[in-house]
Amino acid sequence: MNFNQKLLKIQQDKNSLLCIGLDSDISRIPESFKKSENPQLEFNRSIIQVTHDLVCAYKFNLAFYEETGIKGMQALEKSLELIPDGIIKIADGKRGDIGNTAQKQADTLFKLFNFDAATVNPYMGFDAIEPFINFSEKGVFILCVTSNLGSKDFQHLSVSGKPLFEHVALKAKKWNQHDNIGLVVGATHIAELKKLRTLLMEMPFLIPGIGAQKGDLEKTIKYGCSDDGYNAVINVGRSIIFPSTSNNFQESVRKLAEKYLSEINSCRKKYYT
Amino acid sequence: MNFNQKLLKIQQDKNSLLCIGLDSDISRIPESFKKSENPQLEFNRSIIQVTHDLVCAYKFNLAFYEETGIKGMQALEKSLELIPDGIIKIADGKRGDIGNTAQKQADTLFKLFNFDAATVNPYMGFDAIEPFINFSEKGVFILCVTSNLGSKDFQHLSVSGKPLFEHVALKAKKWNQHDNIGLVVGATHIAELKKLRTLLMEMPFLIPGIGAQKGDLEKTIKYGCSDDGYNAVINVGRSIIFPSTSNNFQESVRKLAEKYLSEINSCRKKYYT
Repeated sequence: MNFNQKLLKIQQDKNSLLCIGLDSDISRIPESFKKSENPQLEFNRSIIQVTHDLVCAYKFNLAFYEETGIKGMQALEKSLELIPDGIIKIADGKRGDIGNTAQKQADTLFKLFNFDAATVNPYMGFDAIEPFINFSEKGVFILCVTSNLGSKDFQHLSVSGKPLFEHVALKAKKWNQHDNIGLVVGATHIAELKKLRTLLMEMPFLIPGIGAQKGDLEKTIKYGCSDDGYNAVINVGRSIIFPSTSNNFQESVRKLAEKYLSEINSCRKKYYT
Repeated sequence: MNFNQKLLKIQQDKNSLLCIGLDSDISRIPESFKKSENPQLEFNRSIIQVTHDLVCAYKFNLAFYEETGIKGMQALEKSLELIPDGIIKIADGKRGDIGNTAQKQADTLFKLFNFDAATVNPYMGFDAIEPFINFSEKGVFILCVTSNLGSKDFQHLSVSGKPLFEHVALKAKKWNQHDNIGLVVGATHIAELKKLRTLLMEMPFLIPGIGAQKGDLEKTIKYGCSDDGYNAVINVGRSIIFPSTSNNFQESVRKLAEKYLSEINSCRKKYYT
């Protein structure tokens, strides 16, 4: 089964668009985990235990694991093993490079670590992401409109009357021969999200920016899903994994994840039935 | 001393613009290194021993070390320690992400590994690379025109009458408050290199594409240097580190490095005296 069908099936089976971002910043992990051999791993284990039934995906921002060197690599490898079947594992590393190098990147993420999907940067063009796309059962989320302020610097520049990010989206559509390409579209850019959804009705969108970055959840659901209320992967990281209180860590994380899932599903009910 | 001045001084002291790309692909490392505990490390040691007097920089393509997991990380760390002072160590990972993540990426490369410079991708805009730029003694090479075929997909799109890559170059100029920004410009795009050098006379250009990718060395030197014949960092990877014969590996590597340095310096003599 190609990636985009697999993702849709998981979202349907679990009735969830929620993705938890395991951006397990070592400097923010609660003290109680610091005594263990590998704090990032135990922190992730603790989160996965109480949220795996609520999510369609976990997203690992690779930078937070690269920062902690060999321990980070072990945390990444072992955390991935803890995730039950039927949940998408996304490597968020924004990769892409000339052909022989991109092949190494894709092999590392998809074969060595066995991730199900990866984020890639479009600036270098097709051949820089082709080795990722060639894994048809794996997903490739191409950066389109990112959630940060700097997204205005280049992504919104007008090319033949259309912003650059639209050109990226149209190329992504053209390149999607294996039905395994998606886009990254920040929840902080609702007008762009709406526009992109009209252009690409069935394509999965990985949507960061909810929570700490203050994207509007209701509008994100209203404009970000395909017609049937699926195909948006709503990533929430810091607002779930770093609860404001450190008492009852697992209970707090579970409650936050339930809150986001419930809000997402309320909005889906409102707009897609 | 800020990075760009430091690079210029090293190029002047060593009379070399040559950068060797330690893209130490484990699948291409000669058999004789395979018996050692860490083949990538021993391969790099062997190259560094016989080339360090000839180069201004070594560039490490991170993907080739990520592929080999923990051993790759150790190879990277220890190879960097083998490089004598007075040579620039470039991390080629094409990084860039939202602020808190980019900070982790910059800390990892510049503090944990002690690289002197890094390549970054401009698609996400200023705040995605600002944490790198804030290390004023470290260099930040922003992808501008890349050496691969896919560079045509977006980099050459026309925005207000100018190609996108020129907008990237002009932003880079504006962002260069700490005198530590450079551009990546592929040797396979001579017209663009010429144009960019007229726009940015003093900025360092990291120029891949010579050797395996068949960029024209003479034209690269003619159009890629600043007025005094410096500020181009000519990267050669596979054509030096993987000699066609596996006999006398170190001797072959040394000869290839000398050949490239000599060709570069002949061209500099022709066009800059």
